[in-house]
Amino acid sequence: MYDTFSTDRLIDQWLMEDIGGCDLTVQTMIGKHETGAFQMNAREPMIIAGVDVAARVFQRYDPSLEIKVKVADGDRVEKGAILLEVRGAARSILTAERTALNIMQRLCGIAGETAKYVNAIAGTSARLIDSRKTTPGLRMLEKHAVSCGGGLNHRLGLDNGVMIKDNHIAVCGGITAAVERARKTLPVLTKLEVECDRLNQVGEALKAGVDVIMLDNMSVADMKKAVELVNGRTRIEASGGIRLETIRPIAETGVDYISTSKITQAAAAVDIGLDEA
Amino acid sequence: MYDTFSTDRLIDQWLMEDIGGCDLTVQTMIGKHETGAFQMNAREPMIIAGVDVAARVFQRYDPSLEIKVKVADGDRVEKGAILLEVRGAARSILTAERTALNIMQRLCGIAGETAKYVNAIAGTSARLIDSRKTTPGLRMLEKHAVSCGGGLNHRLGLDNGVMIKDNHIAVCGGITAAVERARKTLPVLTKLEVECDRLNQVGEALKAGVDVIMLDNMSVADMKKAVELVNGRTRIEASGGIRLETIRPIAETGVDYISTSKITQAAAAVDIGLDEA
Amino acid sequence: MYDTFSTDRLIDQWLMEDIGGCDLTVQTMIGKHETGAFQMNAREPMIIAGVDVAARVFQRYDPSLEIKVKVADGDRVEKGAILLEVRGAARSILTAERTALNIMQRLCGIAGETAKYVNAIAGTSARLIDSRKTTPGLRMLEKHAVSCGGGLNHRLGLDNGVMIKDNHIAVCGGITAAVERARKTLPVLTKLEVECDRLNQVGEALKAGVDVIMLDNMSVADMKKAVELVNGRTRIEASGGIRLETIRPIAETGVDYISTSKITQAAAAVDIGLDEA
Amino acid sequence: MYDTFSTDRLIDQWLMEDIGGCDLTVQTMIGKHETGAFQMNAREPMIIAGVDVAARVFQRYDPSLEIKVKVADGDRVEKGAILLEVRGAARSILTAERTALNIMQRLCGIAGETAKYVNAIAGTSARLIDSRKTTPGLRMLEKHAVSCGGGLNHRLGLDNGVMIKDNHIAVCGGITAAVERARKTLPVLTKLEVECDRLNQVGEALKAGVDVIMLDNMSVADMKKAVELVNGRTRIEASGGIRLETIRPIAETGVDYISTSKITQAAAAVDIGLDEA
Amino acid sequence: MYDTFSTDRLIDQWLMEDIGGCDLTVQTMIGKHETGAFQMNAREPMIIAGVDVAARVFQRYDPSLEIKVKVADGDRVEKGAILLEVRGAARSILTAERTALNIMQRLCGIAGETAKYVNAIAGTSARLIDSRKTTPGLRMLEKHAVSCGGGLNHRLGLDNGVMIKDNHIAVCGGITAAVERARKTLPVLTKLEVECDRLNQVGEALKAGVDVIMLDNMSVADMKKAVELVNGRTRIEASGGIRLETIRPIAETGVDYISTSKITQAAAAVDIGLDEA
Amino acid sequence: MYDTFSTDRLIDQWLMEDIGGCDLTVQTMIGKHETGAFQMNAREPMIIAGVDVAARVFQRYDPSLEIKVKVADGDRVEKGAILLEVRGAARSILTAERTALNIMQRLCGIAGETAKYVNAIAGTSARLIDSRKTTPGLRMLEKHAVSCGGGLNHRLGLDNGVMIKDNHIAVCGGITAAVERARKTLPVLTKLEVECDRLNQVGEALKAGVDVIMLDNMSVADMKKAVELVNGRTRIEASGGIRLETIRPIAETGVDYISTSKITQAAAAVDIGLDEA
Repeated sequence: MYDTFSTDRLIDQWLMEDIGGCDLTVQTMIGKHETGAFQMNAREPMIIAGVDVAARVFQRYDPSLEIKVKVADGDRVEKGAILLEVRGAARSILTAERTALNIMQRLCGIAGETAKYVNAIAGTSARLIDSRKTTPGLRMLEKHAVSCGGGLNHRLGLDNGVMIKDNHIAVCGGITAAVERARKTLPVLTKLEVECDRLNQVGEALKAGVDVIMLDNMSVADMKKAVELVNGRTRIEASGGIRLETIRPIAETGVDYISTSKITQAAAAVDIGLDEA
Repeated sequence: MYDTFSTDRLIDQWLMEDIGGCDLTVQTMIGKHETGAFQMNAREPMIIAGVDVAARVFQRYDPSLEIKVKVADGDRVEKGAILLEVRGAARSILTAERTALNIMQRLCGIAGETAKYVNAIAGTSARLIDSRKTTPGLRMLEKHAVSCGGGLNHRLGLDNGVMIKDNHIAVCGGITAAVERARKTLPVLTKLEVECDRLNQVGEALKAGVDVIMLDNMSVADMKKAVELVNGRTRIEASGGIRLETIRPIAETGVDYISTSKITQAAAAVDIGLDEA
Repeated sequence: MYDTFSTDRLIDQWLMEDIGGCDLTVQTMIGKHETGAFQMNAREPMIIAGVDVAARVFQRYDPSLEIKVKVADGDRVEKGAILLEVRGAARSILTAERTALNIMQRLCGIAGETAKYVNAIAGTSARLIDSRKTTPGLRMLEKHAVSCGGGLNHRLGLDNGVMIKDNHIAVCGGITAAVERARKTLPVLTKLEVECDRLNQVGEALKAGVDVIMLDNMSVADMKKAVELVNGRTRIEASGGIRLETIRPIAETGVDYISTSKITQAAAAVDIGLDEA
Repeated sequence: MYDTFSTDRLIDQWLMEDIGGCDLTVQTMIGKHETGAFQMNAREPMIIAGVDVAARVFQRYDPSLEIKVKVADGDRVEKGAILLEVRGAARSILTAERTALNIMQRLCGIAGETAKYVNAIAGTSARLIDSRKTTPGLRMLEKHAVSCGGGLNHRLGLDNGVMIKDNHIAVCGGITAAVERARKTLPVLTKLEVECDRLNQVGEALKAGVDVIMLDNMSVADMKKAVELVNGRTRIEASGGIRLETIRPIAETGVDYISTSKITQAAAAVDIGLDEA
Repeated sequence: MYDTFSTDRLIDQWLMEDIGGCDLTVQTMIGKHETGAFQMNAREPMIIAGVDVAARVFQRYDPSLEIKVKVADGDRVEKGAILLEVRGAARSILTAERTALNIMQRLCGIAGETAKYVNAIAGTSARLIDSRKTTPGLRMLEKHAVSCGGGLNHRLGLDNGVMIKDNHIAVCGGITAAVERARKTLPVLTKLEVECDRLNQVGEALKAGVDVIMLDNMSVADMKKAVELVNGRTRIEASGGIRLETIRPIAETGVDYISTSKITQAAAAVDIGLDEA
Repeated sequence: MYDTFSTDRLIDQWLMEDIGGCDLTVQTMIGKHETGAFQMNAREPMIIAGVDVAARVFQRYDPSLEIKVKVADGDRVEKGAILLEVRGAARSILTAERTALNIMQRLCGIAGETAKYVNAIAGTSARLIDSRKTTPGLRMLEKHAVSCGGGLNHRLGLDNGVMIKDNHIAVCGGITAAVERARKTLPVLTKLEVECDRLNQVGEALKAGVDVIMLDNMSVADMKKAVELVNGRTRIEASGGIRLETIRPIAETGVDYISTSKITQAAAAVDIGLDEA
């Protein structure tokens, strides 16, 4: 889930960032009319994310390039898989190459990291979700990569749901008052989430009718109690310090969502290369 | 090394990406005239990179905020260190918070990862360098973070040096011919690097008078031979599959530079929080 | 509710649209160092919306202008009320004048039109809401003007809630299937609304657990039945052909929201002038 | 009269305003490869303005859409008329739909409102003209809509003619001095208009050789006298408080132009829908 | 005559063009906290144009710089004159220096070249005017420089007056028909000029009531006849192949305007330097 | 050497600068469906530079235009040569004409001026180079024009090489210290140049191992001594007050590069016209 039209604007900026004045190597070494055929290869097993974006990098730079996308976002591929083929002006392909690789390597990295967490909670009722802890400039694409890895998206941005945190609660004099204040002007299709640090806030949040209750850094035991207390009347998100080693017991408490920034902030890029076809 | 003026334009885009229509939480929950005082805290030991950028995120969003930067890029700080203080309109601080944290967490992560590699080769004559494998949109800032961690920068972009690779050599019919072709139009202050996959190319590159010879994926033994052959007459870069575990013997061969994408593509974000002061 | 930071970018574009090459009148007639003091006056009774935006138009064009805002958004003022005072370089004030007036006249017009509809349903449980039928380029500001007039906002944009319409239902083979499909990837804090053209769809929508049911162009009698059927288990929006003359009986059916495009698409600008103080 | 090239830039911004992160409904409900055929229908009689702009909204968002424009700007059509047909990726059509409708509904509204005033003065020598009181961001398109309705355009912007008003006259010490001052630096193809509040200024303006004399808020009797006085030696514009009910007697005084902001500031959008073909 | 607000946007782009990734010299050589005081000096006699623009280049790059402008646009200064002083962060001053000098050197060059032509026709009734033959991106500033040199501006751009040329006349079937066609939709404050290649077109143009008649590449003798024929009833512009050596006799024919592209297309930059104060 | 992709963004801005609101002449005089065939003609002998840019101006404005480029950058053509042909919508061709001509006239002017200097030093070992003294906004294109005329490019921008000048040397306490300071953080493929005002600095610069030594405003005799001293161990650039009349003896001293701003700052535009084919 990302918009191709606005992504094109990002792609244009990325290309110009790398090119600067001009690609000195290509302009001094390669003739204007030389052509070539190249393919992007997976140099390790990976989950695909952003292959259409990578294709689009080449296309934006030079609309005359012929591109064939050979895999789809969400696919799991083996080492050696051909991801896309590009054919045409050698100058254009080599100038755009690094930008296309950089974005796709990063997005596949996120998809793969997400999949590890998703697998770790497979079979439970919990779904893995992301956060707003994404790379500045890549919000929608990184959230898309999370989906490719099987995760669900939390807020897309600050206009996409309300999160009431401890300092809001303090200012308003309690969860009930805070929720009432938000409701007065909240757009009709926007949900409201409250962050609870202590178990005894969960009841008040529930009564206030919030859409999601976030349990922040609670013990597994307390999470279990919260799940029982809520008993399906609203959604529950577990958050804070989630690690791959500790996620399954949390998922087994019965919470609806588990959020972690690791999938976007600690995912290493995968290895993809562009080779002559 | 990054330009503050053009970084401001990036900051503006990051802010608008996160805010979208408006920050619903802040606008519904917090009064226009409420003020607050917050500080950014290191939640783990880290090397600082981008603290002025983080400060600038707040300042761009609301020039009336008072900001005190408490550390400098390149500093090594302990868990609990205060990185910056920001005071003023609570709405502005909370709206800009996530963007400021996201960029700084990422840059400090890169600085720290770089420092690990730099430490691993301490005492040798080799310097650790980066590559163009950076996050699209963050090129200069990530390269700056590499410096904060003690690394040196390779090309800033495609207009910043020429790299002759195997396919260029093939097209031109040899390294000598390729270098001659490039020299004809190369700007006066631009250096030229040739990628050598095999030891027997090093001599030709040396004779052609290139500024840097890159040894691509060579064995440590071959690197040693290359260093002996060149004997200080030009610079040598080791590249390809560098890992923290294997970097020291490479550095000890006497190469001038060792480049790795790991420092930009596999660095996890550090943990930084914004708390009420 | 609008973001001042991104509104500044709109203001810059508006100013340049009106100015083009330069303000020929001001540049040929008025000295660079002449100063003046002006005030914006309400030339008819109105509800204020966008006074800070109007102030900001002057401030963006010339940061050295001194501006005093005398009213607040949402205020109801009489003919003759002073809305803001601006003092400084006469050239700057006269060049920015028309842009400041144009936006504020339009926003106050929307606020006033909204208030008429809000008054018409006063005392009922229904709230007046807007739609995405806004002027291209002015989405957030027009929605803000609707709040100033006492209305509530529907979706801010296409990333702000899901609306399932008849053709989606047809494609998916029914409301239940459509809702399930959406749920699979819907971000956690996003609500889901279904458009029902016929009363017999309401039950299915309710069972599918949607957040809002829109009754599209239904008779008042059918709306009443829908309200009874739903019985508070979800929110109901009445939509389609709403007019000031017919809105009250609709509100009295017990629906939660009534949406109309009239408040944004048929509101005449109010009369505001800039006069020497 | 508008430039298609720069209008494309506006269209891009409008689309991104509505889409934000992405169109959640379309992305969750509609398959990437589903296609559809839709048509824009007039839901009331209207004068066409902006049909090529609406077509271009679809085309910019997705160049692969096939679009057939069935009417031309300036056409008067009946309820039920098909305005354009669009065929292709269902996702693209539905994402761009609202933006295309919003702009065209507004522009046709302006054209229709203009036509009412133009009709009211039919047969006289007066021509209806617009003002700079347009929606920020839509200047040229709204002026184009005025032409579609049979009106003529006044200044396109501040670089498009000089308007000498009372405060300029005061500063310069009279109309003659003001005109002389302007003439010194005025570009060669730019006209000069003077605003006269009182009949006794008309003679001086005439002698100063201005291109247009604006009679501001004068009585019909005074306008008649002004027309006689000028006797065809320059153009005369009547302005201020023009209403549909009072415009004809003004036109019959023999003035050349009558300007009103009502056609741009008080025109309601017309009703246009997009339906499956 | 230029707009400072939109000029700021140009300045930002110029700065980023020169800086690219960052100013390597300044960042590697000069400390962040070093300060300096510099002045711009005229290294030859010149007419000033763009000194406020040059000042603004420094100010945009670093608002904390203190700048004193010592001359005004239009001033004639001797070699050695101090044009502006700038004091503050040495890094900022040195990074912005070249951009500030480049623009001002060019604009003063144009002003000086213009003054030569203006002097050559001093005492006649003719005024020297420019054309649209300006450097792409610098239209308004170059036209401003023409004024600083004593010239008058022709059209600012394509929206600023109508020019009927031979191919328009051919298409419409004569000057009279062409003028009528233009008048139908021409904005009220826009003038109309007709290009006449032959003397026998002048009469028709005069009768058609155009605002300016351009005599294109006519002999001085024919120009004289045209002036007599027109006899003050409209304005006359002489154009085509004007040179400094041949301009005076043309001016003495009695034409109102003489236009030349030489002042913008063949003006050499003047020599200005930035030296430590 | 320039990047076509980022040049497209410049072209768009140039077009909008000239067009403003709209091309009034074309819109009032020429029918939407009229077509034409035109050709760009050389009205004097010239060296071609920017013909693809001129072609691209037409193509960006209207992708449906058919364009045939008849010459190549670097070609030397006679008066009367056809440079490109353009065929299609007459409105589009006439609207884009001036922008296409303006840029190409300027670039060919620079190429021709450069060629004069290059010819003057033909047969010597010196190469003519440019500087950063280019028109703001046209850096890469003007540098490209210099290549078309046979010159070589100096720095593309501030991120493209380091220049150590007298004030840097003063701050650091000597050339050796300055060079060491720069080396610490200089990117690997960036060269370093030192400006020497006096002969006795050349030895120190040589020892410090700089890549280029610039002899600033030295006498021919001193230059000769510097060449002997350096004896091929590094590159030497002669700079300062270079004129066409004095350049040959400088070239004959044996310097590697001679730089002058005259080729970009004092080149007159060539005469090119667009005529019906």
